[in-house]
Amino acid sequence: MRAGEERPTTAILAGSGRLPLLLADHLEASGTRPRILAFRGFASRALARRADAVIGLLDIRSAIACLAGWRPERVTLAGGLARPSAAAALDAFSALRSREEVTALLGRGDDNLLRGVVGLLEERGYRLVGVRDLAPDLLAPAGPHGRLAPDAAARAAIQRGIAGLAALTPFDIGQAVVLRGERVLAVEGPEGTDATLRRVAGAPIASWLRRRDRDGVLVKAPKRGQDLRVDLPAVGPRTVVEADRAGLAGIAVASGLTLVLDREETIAEADRRGLFLAGIQVGPDGA
Amino acid sequence: MRAGEERPTTAILAGSGRLPLLLADHLEASGTRPRILAFRGFASRALARRADAVIGLLDIRSAIACLAGWRPERVTLAGGLARPSAAAALDAFSALRSREEVTALLGRGDDNLLRGVVGLLEERGYRLVGVRDLAPDLLAPAGPHGRLAPDAAARAAIQRGIAGLAALTPFDIGQAVVLRGERVLAVEGPEGTDATLRRVAGAPIASWLRRRDRDGVLVKAPKRGQDLRVDLPAVGPRTVVEADRAGLAGIAVASGLTLVLDREETIAEADRRGLFLAGIQVGPDGA
Repeated sequence: MRAGEERPTTAILAGSGRLPLLLADHLEASGTRPRILAFRGFASRALARRADAVIGLLDIRSAIACLAGWRPERVTLAGGLARPSAAAALDAFSALRSREEVTALLGRGDDNLLRGVVGLLEERGYRLVGVRDLAPDLLAPAGPHGRLAPDAAARAAIQRGIAGLAALTPFDIGQAVVLRGERVLAVEGPEGTDATLRRVAGAPIASWLRRRDRDGVLVKAPKRGQDLRVDLPAVGPRTVVEADRAGLAGIAVASGLTLVLDREETIAEADRRGLFLAGIQVGPDGA
Repeated sequence: MRAGEERPTTAILAGSGRLPLLLADHLEASGTRPRILAFRGFASRALARRADAVIGLLDIRSAIACLAGWRPERVTLAGGLARPSAAAALDAFSALRSREEVTALLGRGDDNLLRGVVGLLEERGYRLVGVRDLAPDLLAPAGPHGRLAPDAAARAAIQRGIAGLAALTPFDIGQAVVLRGERVLAVEGPEGTDATLRRVAGAPIASWLRRRDRDGVLVKAPKRGQDLRVDLPAVGPRTVVEADRAGLAGIAVASGLTLVLDREETIAEADRRGLFLAGIQVGPDGA
């Protein structure tokens, strides 16, 4: 903590991607400068320059010491901490927890890994908040975002996609599915949305369909039971590009529960490429 | 039909892969020479040499004419007709059915496409049989196939995999899942089992885990409601190689409902690489 500074309102524990910067901008625009702790190897260079502290790959011990000095009113995890490499997570936890515990956490999936981090912070009395509390403007509103809206066929596929994601909930996989008509073509795993869309683009059926009308949708929604403070589904301009290459008609996201990063650019990209981007209301628990 | 030949017992409509040859060998060994209709562009060169007729890519019209000449007692579809390219399917069906119907079939998934072919044959009075009727020896028996058996952790993962496949049934995706512990790492889509395993091998967590003990399983079972006469899950030596590269402990397949192609080689490969390969009893409808 710099001498003479007030106790900060918000501390951002910042990982990769655009979210930490967007969140910091949003908080500053609303009059509260956040304190930023950037994780080395995850946070972008732009963020690391702006950060109050840069700490080794998920070195939770140093992060805890840093927070103890700042005493923020609330803490948020933002950016790609949701999926650290296993080695990074091991480094981080091994200072505090046994290797057996870490291995068990990793084996049980991302959600459990994040719950471990959240547990460590909450045990120490920090109030953990999410983007939904800090900057709801970054989340997808309901309805079409750009010029285009899903037609009846796309709306049917979207409802089927929401049902498919709900069916997968107990198995800790899938914040996204790609459907064409009634058929689920791909379920997203740890490889992420972009790789999932590239898989669809690579299938023979996609190249055939690309010569005809656009068809198919990407549906993103949180897993049921997922801690929405630390892990929200996200889309951005890159998602639109990959959805276009896969020949899809558009992208549907759970409204209020999905980040739209670089919103203006994302919507412009969708309009330019002729895809819809729409927020769909799903239950508060993801389906 | 060659002059002077008897009406054949079995006609094999042969697609890609090893199955048509293995099936022909099995039938000849048991004393009935099958008539083989090989689909050009799908059937292997070895099969095309042995075939009685070689017909253009899924040219169903010519295939029907050929069968009308042979009048076989039963017909079987064998090999990779399960997943023709969309263009091939379109060529095939367009002679008989409207483009709209074909597009609808393709949109509804592999199962529906195959049901279309089956329907065309059955409308014409052919008795369609599967490998289960013709050569049950080609199917996985229950229990460990090689030296190794799944341990308690692997058995738990297998049961979870079977449940996951059952949950996916309404969505026409997934004859296979890969799990590590309680977590589903990948759901197989139209890309097939080998590509699904490569996806797992490419994930950061896999390379980390490979340095430690083997962990994780591939689970294969038919989708519920799938027509087992024309589309059975299959494993072979290549599956074992890819499962090894993904760092898995082994492979579980639905016994009596999964083809083990080149069985001796497949089991030898599993033993050599230290993976189990086991048949698991699941319900007659796949789960």
